[in-house]
Amino acid sequence: MAILFSNATILPMTADEGSPKTFTGFVGVAGSRIALVTESASEADAFRAAHPDARIIDCTGRLLMPGLVNTHCHAAMTLQRSYADDIALMEWLHDYIWPFEARQTADDVALGMTLGVVEMLLGGVTSFVDMYYHENRCVEVAERLGIRAMLGCNYFDSNVEEVLPEVGQAVELAACCDRVRIALAPHSPYTVSPENLRRGKETAERYGLHLMTHIAETQDEVRIVREKYGMTPVEHLDALGMLDARTIGAHCIHLTDSDIATLAARGVAVSHNPQSNMKISSGVAPVERLRAAGALVTIGTDGTCSNNDLDMFEEVRTAAFLQKSATGDPVALPAYEALKLATVNGARALGYAEGELGVVREGALADLIVVDLQKPHLQPVHDLVSNIVYCGKASDVDTVMVDGRIVVENRRVAGVDLPALYAAVAAAVKRITAK
Amino acid sequence: MAILFSNATILPMTADEGSPKTFTGFVGVAGSRIALVTESASEADAFRAAHPDARIIDCTGRLLMPGLVNTHCHAAMTLQRSYADDIALMEWLHDYIWPFEARQTADDVALGMTLGVVEMLLGGVTSFVDMYYHENRCVEVAERLGIRAMLGCNYFDSNVEEVLPEVGQAVELAACCDRVRIALAPHSPYTVSPENLRRGKETAERYGLHLMTHIAETQDEVRIVREKYGMTPVEHLDALGMLDARTIGAHCIHLTDSDIATLAARGVAVSHNPQSNMKISSGVAPVERLRAAGALVTIGTDGTCSNNDLDMFEEVRTAAFLQKSATGDPVALPAYEALKLATVNGARALGYAEGELGVVREGALADLIVVDLQKPHLQPVHDLVSNIVYCGKASDVDTVMVDGRIVVENRRVAGVDLPALYAAVAAAVKRITAK
Repeated sequence: MAILFSNATILPMTADEGSPKTFTGFVGVAGSRIALVTESASEADAFRAAHPDARIIDCTGRLLMPGLVNTHCHAAMTLQRSYADDIALMEWLHDYIWPFEARQTADDVALGMTLGVVEMLLGGVTSFVDMYYHENRCVEVAERLGIRAMLGCNYFDSNVEEVLPEVGQAVELAACCDRVRIALAPHSPYTVSPENLRRGKETAERYGLHLMTHIAETQDEVRIVREKYGMTPVEHLDALGMLDARTIGAHCIHLTDSDIATLAARGVAVSHNPQSNMKISSGVAPVERLRAAGALVTIGTDGTCSNNDLDMFEEVRTAAFLQKSATGDPVALPAYEALKLATVNGARALGYAEGELGVVREGALADLIVVDLQKPHLQPVHDLVSNIVYCGKASDVDTVMVDGRIVVENRRVAGVDLPALYAAVAAAVKRITAK
Repeated sequence: MAILFSNATILPMTADEGSPKTFTGFVGVAGSRIALVTESASEADAFRAAHPDARIIDCTGRLLMPGLVNTHCHAAMTLQRSYADDIALMEWLHDYIWPFEARQTADDVALGMTLGVVEMLLGGVTSFVDMYYHENRCVEVAERLGIRAMLGCNYFDSNVEEVLPEVGQAVELAACCDRVRIALAPHSPYTVSPENLRRGKETAERYGLHLMTHIAETQDEVRIVREKYGMTPVEHLDALGMLDARTIGAHCIHLTDSDIATLAARGVAVSHNPQSNMKISSGVAPVERLRAAGALVTIGTDGTCSNNDLDMFEEVRTAAFLQKSATGDPVALPAYEALKLATVNGARALGYAEGELGVVREGALADLIVVDLQKPHLQPVHDLVSNIVYCGKASDVDTVMVDGRIVVENRRVAGVDLPALYAAVAAAVKRITAK
């Protein structure tokens, strides 16, 4: 079915450098793609004539923009949201996270993924990159809820023999649906051996998949990799042939100038996770230096144990604030540039060609969100992009479309019974955490 | 009229050190004060019997907690929200802020204040400390909208002769209403002469008012004060007798150990504004060192030119994140301590005795908010305080009571026509910014 968004304020995000352009107009969607972007009422009429069954969504007073792309999270960890905060790392892992994960089943992971995807959709996230266990079980969740997903099969040396053989099956399951893709996700260069890193990359290449890993998240990691291999994490991964335009590196905080040049030269997508980095005191990623070097910087929320939500509006804002604070330059990472990281850049990290996703443009995939501007915190409108980046809230999103299909309308996620979901989540965590 | 909140999850914020206590129960309000806090259904029944006209508000699945206290803002600057972002300070002031302010009238300021107060109430802010021009004109706004306010009459050397004589009239206007108080607000130690600082303090003492000022917000300010007076800003203000338990110091970023000891010893309320400090690259306030020294730390949003909203949920979260990031210690400023800064500590900054405001306790003033916990980002509930601090949103607040009166219900502000307000704001900014 075709859909026509009419009388919307449109932020296309297709401008190259420089200032954003917004205008009032119409966006027509046919199938999974944007078929029309215009200011012209007569072109909109022609679209309606060509699609007599088209549904019209009046967007007066509302903003139509690309959906947000979350390039790093562990969505199923919603089950562990606020489970263990404000404690030191080792106590956190040994006494809380690992015992919890040891007791959860594949069904629990699918349930946590459901809660996480519902939260993301309600906050205008139309694509996400995940990294966790039982991703084969999560294909169905992403498919059913309608979000676009890249599901990274996470492994350590300890479980590599279980995870790698499952990848083929996961790829087959995901073949049912263009929106859902599988990826390889070796945990990090300090927890996975060179041999097992290489096996992951080989598996990724065999199936034509992306590979993601945590890179240089902490100073400890850099020290360990230097001691073991005499190289920085980036040098080590590069020497193993792990870095290319199909690699997503999460965090990338503790980098040398040479590391930055390497990430840029290889086309690695850097997933910057500012709230997680602040909350668990990991350090501040050199986003402005990465951007200056031409690296592809994107934004992710990380998991809900270290954030503790999946709110990309806050994440974009925090990215801008943190660069301004850390560099001492109030002009660092301006609003529009920050928003690009979470839209056009995120789409490129997923492997989409420029202009195919993360923009409002004819021919692009229809991943769109409608933001209600009639809120006190979004008035007056001197600068719409500043308002969205510095004041916009996940809760201002009222309609979400992914791949041409409306998955959220009037802040309701299609096909989800929230009270039943909360009850199932409560029962699962009660069972998992029972003494 | 009496009101009984029933079946609420209650976070009283009355615990001293250590872990928070929450319980399910009832809160009865009679007049402007909390008359009952209990887990007992029979005590709740007795309250209903004693108040046969009591309205019952069922809070099943919702949290009742103290309203938030915003200890530093310039609420009327909502008119300039996103007017001039991502540019350098001097260009910002000379080309945007000052010309805008030169053209706005007292009516414009009252209008901007209205928009700001509406935004704050919808976000669970029940008290705020303001610092701007035409505060005498804003008494009526605070009185009408039902918020608790301390309105600081801001002055520089350039307008001190206009502002100080107006204070008496403002105090008279505010006498109509217990909730609204006037304060003196010399801009800062680098923009107001020692003589005019002292005159402000004398005026404050004559009327029994608080005094607020910006302190050590930038390194430039510290340099200027050192060059002029051979002292730090805190030393300079202390030498002038400006610092005591009726002083609110905004920002307090660039402090020596001795400054910290002085602020603690004098009982000055420090208003920490983390998002503003990050966005305009002012530096990071030493909140953990201030707390360790026993200083009264509170939280403010600052104005909407440098934040760009008045969202205290985000501000509390950012305060915790920023201390963890800046100190390198993930245990710094834990969730519950951060929430205290915005409730019990904020109330003390306003001059209320401990236990009189900012808590859910029998005898306290009834400034309460009800938070809807049935949201994906607030599920599951391993730790309610972590969920509120790290995931809670202004938009989760559905009911707000100030001074025993319900001013927000189902996310509607009593007596406010939002479309008309937005239209008036748009017309005012169009006139002010016309070439």
